[in-house]
Amino acid sequence: MPYKDFSSLSAATRLLELARKPFDLSRAGALSPQRIRDYRSSACGFDLLYATERLDEPVLDALQALADEAGLIEQFMAMKRGAPMNRIEGYACENRQVLHTASRDLFSAQPYAPEATARAKRELEKLRHFLDKVAAGDIVNERGESLGTLVQVGIGGSDLGPRALSQALSAFALPGREARFIANVDPDDAAAVLSGLDLNRSLVVVVSKSGTTLETLTNEELMRAALARAGLDPARHMLAVTGEGSPMDDSSRYLASFYMYDYIGGRYSATSMVGAVTLGFTLGFEALLAFLRGAWEMDLAAESPDIRNNLPLLLALIGIWNRNFLGYPSCAILPYSQALARFPAHLQQCDMESNGKSVTRQGNMVTWQTGPVIWGEPGTNGQHAFYQLMHQGTEIVPAEFIGFRRSQRDLDIMVSGTTSQQKLVANMLAQSLALARGRDDDNPARRFPGNRPNLVLLADQLTPYQMGALLALYEHRIAFQGFSWNINSFDQEGVQLGKVLAKKLLQHMAEGDARSGNSPAGTSPEEALLALAGMLGRDRP
Amino acid sequence: MPYKDFSSLSAATRLLELARKPFDLSRAGALSPQRIRDYRSSACGFDLLYATERLDEPVLDALQALADEAGLIEQFMAMKRGAPMNRIEGYACENRQVLHTASRDLFSAQPYAPEATARAKRELEKLRHFLDKVAAGDIVNERGESLGTLVQVGIGGSDLGPRALSQALSAFALPGREARFIANVDPDDAAAVLSGLDLNRSLVVVVSKSGTTLETLTNEELMRAALARAGLDPARHMLAVTGEGSPMDDSSRYLASFYMYDYIGGRYSATSMVGAVTLGFTLGFEALLAFLRGAWEMDLAAESPDIRNNLPLLLALIGIWNRNFLGYPSCAILPYSQALARFPAHLQQCDMESNGKSVTRQGNMVTWQTGPVIWGEPGTNGQHAFYQLMHQGTEIVPAEFIGFRRSQRDLDIMVSGTTSQQKLVANMLAQSLALARGRDDDNPARRFPGNRPNLVLLADQLTPYQMGALLALYEHRIAFQGFSWNINSFDQEGVQLGKVLAKKLLQHMAEGDARSGNSPAGTSPEEALLALAGMLGRDRP
Repeated sequence: MPYKDFSSLSAATRLLELARKPFDLSRAGALSPQRIRDYRSSACGFDLLYATERLDEPVLDALQALADEAGLIEQFMAMKRGAPMNRIEGYACENRQVLHTASRDLFSAQPYAPEATARAKRELEKLRHFLDKVAAGDIVNERGESLGTLVQVGIGGSDLGPRALSQALSAFALPGREARFIANVDPDDAAAVLSGLDLNRSLVVVVSKSGTTLETLTNEELMRAALARAGLDPARHMLAVTGEGSPMDDSSRYLASFYMYDYIGGRYSATSMVGAVTLGFTLGFEALLAFLRGAWEMDLAAESPDIRNNLPLLLALIGIWNRNFLGYPSCAILPYSQALARFPAHLQQCDMESNGKSVTRQGNMVTWQTGPVIWGEPGTNGQHAFYQLMHQGTEIVPAEFIGFRRSQRDLDIMVSGTTSQQKLVANMLAQSLALARGRDDDNPARRFPGNRPNLVLLADQLTPYQMGALLALYEHRIAFQGFSWNINSFDQEGVQLGKVLAKKLLQHMAEGDARSGNSPAGTSPEEALLALAGMLGRDRP
Repeated sequence: MPYKDFSSLSAATRLLELARKPFDLSRAGALSPQRIRDYRSSACGFDLLYATERLDEPVLDALQALADEAGLIEQFMAMKRGAPMNRIEGYACENRQVLHTASRDLFSAQPYAPEATARAKRELEKLRHFLDKVAAGDIVNERGESLGTLVQVGIGGSDLGPRALSQALSAFALPGREARFIANVDPDDAAAVLSGLDLNRSLVVVVSKSGTTLETLTNEELMRAALARAGLDPARHMLAVTGEGSPMDDSSRYLASFYMYDYIGGRYSATSMVGAVTLGFTLGFEALLAFLRGAWEMDLAAESPDIRNNLPLLLALIGIWNRNFLGYPSCAILPYSQALARFPAHLQQCDMESNGKSVTRQGNMVTWQTGPVIWGEPGTNGQHAFYQLMHQGTEIVPAEFIGFRRSQRDLDIMVSGTTSQQKLVANMLAQSLALARGRDDDNPARRFPGNRPNLVLLADQLTPYQMGALLALYEHRIAFQGFSWNINSFDQEGVQLGKVLAKKLLQHMAEGDARSGNSPAGTSPEEALLALAGMLGRDRP
């Protein structure tokens, strides 16, 4: 089907009209128990409560029409089946399939993209075999001791997702197993991690699809040097996750290697080997499968054409209502779960790198807003930090709360008749209502305007299964929004210019240092900057 | 002096005119070496490079006029001298002095607010005495062993600043000393920290000015219970930082107590005992003094009426240019230093809780934008995450880079002729130029529009002194912006409504649980929410 421009959709015209008088949440009685019951949708253990959004039946009907008209479900199914969704017509581009869903389409008899799923199964079997050998004591360190810590070296998609997931599920770690992460080229990042590490008992997994990522290769060298200093054999401690045939695809240098494929972008790679090695090592293979099953079930839930019964699609369309029709430039992700502390950073990447675009899939400039700024911190902490602005600032920030009825660990305490977990959830729900409803007051500084749109995602417990479902929920929210905006959510051309300029600056620094004999007083950053500015004046960057 | 409304300033009218044609950074030759040299200002070891902002001499002159007209320096000096800046005329309000600067005005013969500084000195002396006793082995655990870990229990201002600073300076920690933090009422937060902790060797400092913060008191109980379970005496392990006379001001329950005062708001309290206890314990008293000296010297640098020679004021006015005249709703803080990973979260609180307001100091609704959304993550990580949107999205995000010429720890590696630290700084400077300059291309997806405003803060090394200066730089940026917008940057009325509603919900849950015999299946969150929604329909929240 031909892709339609967002502005050409007749549903968009209808929504623009409706946005002139959005539903007033601050009116007495507007947030009735009946409304809360009605604006609720469920999938894979999540309840989505969206009565606190500024919408009503006509808006939902128009959003449904938008989904139908733009063919969002058709595009999603085409993606799952392996259509080259990562492309821009008529221009040089990656021109790739987008098949992160294939990495968890393991549980159905007839996977949508059989080859990609077969590869995913093969890599998972390799991983299961490897983990069995570690557990059986067939893979040990130089002294015959077991290996307990896995250090993941990667950046961007090879770091944020695995790091967020690993932290989210650390309550379920196998005894003696833990994960650490090094990403930044900042040498203090690796130094800080190394300072608390027993290298003897550690494995290091280096993750780079291209096998050429500057930060990752530099940190790999740094880790190899640290192992050598400790008298350890890198070939007994280093693992690789990389593309088949990449410069890192060299089994002689690694204890084991696992493959990733060009049809899975970095920011969508958490359910591929990029996340699986670390999650499998720390949580065990069965928990890894539960995580993948959660993602897979959400992949299926995303197929329904009825927006009221399709959580990812509904989440996407509510976001579009807030972004394009009510005009809000950012969106806060607010998990009421300390375990999800880094999940907003993962979503920030996944969303902003996917939908921070200005060109349509036909190579035209968009004339509508695309991806918002995504940010967030856990509650209740945020209540004592930035919520002031959310309640009373001049900037309206749509919020998405994520909470759980039960804690992960069994350490809770009853104070004043409620548990900490009850306090946590009660605070989340109270914030949702407070933002929406507001409050009048004779004292202007104590007035709350209300009508600050938000929604709540609520599940029983943050288990591996639930984490997989949550991850896929947001992955598809992002994809559905990109489809609506007619942009390519799967490339990242915007990272190139910075790389080109950094390379020029580093070349200048290296030459300057060579001239001055590598003294630290060699080329100062400022000198290099001035030299580059001079070049920019003459050349096209 | 009478406070003037932002919209009534004649400089604001002039700036509105100038904003119709802001300086074009994308024009060939615009970013000349000369411009980079000219748009540079320095203080306390920091160089501020702002050639990559969309401004020129007429804009700077108008911003200077705005500073003069609004009396920003007069207001700042009044604040330092103890004027009741935390107030709203004619309405019930906190009506307090704002004297965080007094907590570091220790090095001058004639402090601006002598009483407050005398109190700060007294508490510092108490702390020095306490730390000496720990170092000398006069304070030890039940078995006579030394105490190495300090667990800070607090939330918001009693957590974010100390946590960010502690992480920033951990490279300078005394041998065997470390800090941990518990903030969230989420029981999994405390459980995760406890799971990796040797309580025997730990001190716990509970921080709450009012002595009534729900999360903190709950976590204090949880820590006391954990100590008791471990057979330890809480009175040998617990410290308090609280207001004199608060419910927590009870020396029989704590090994030592330190005071904080109501003229220092939580988000400005990092240089009071709220931050000093943990920093002093982990870094030693001399490093704590160096940190305070850095803040104090920046306090002095902020007194200059010449915006080109006053870093905090210049930073504030550039922010106002971007916010009110170029119209950008958010601002990204991007430290190229992994040690500063949590500093954006601290600034997010400090800025958004201070300036996320809609009412003037006379109690009128503002008719101009106030505080933006503040967010950010460290580079180079961010380059592989959200920078795509910053370069090519439809949303323009002003960026503030923070970098250092040298690393903190001595673990660096030369790869391809440059060190990791050089790569780190080169990437930061390259991003600054790339955002500003942009690049044309025949392929529309590879076009960079440029003109994305940003600035760079560069210093030699992130030492305690430099950290103090950086903290005060941003504190005063925030204050100067609040003065400009004629809002009270020192209250937080916007956090109250959520508290009220949470209390109602918890009451309902406690009653429900009592009815059902405290079974976990007692009152579900949804039932409580529906009940509260019912109440909201009838009552004023």
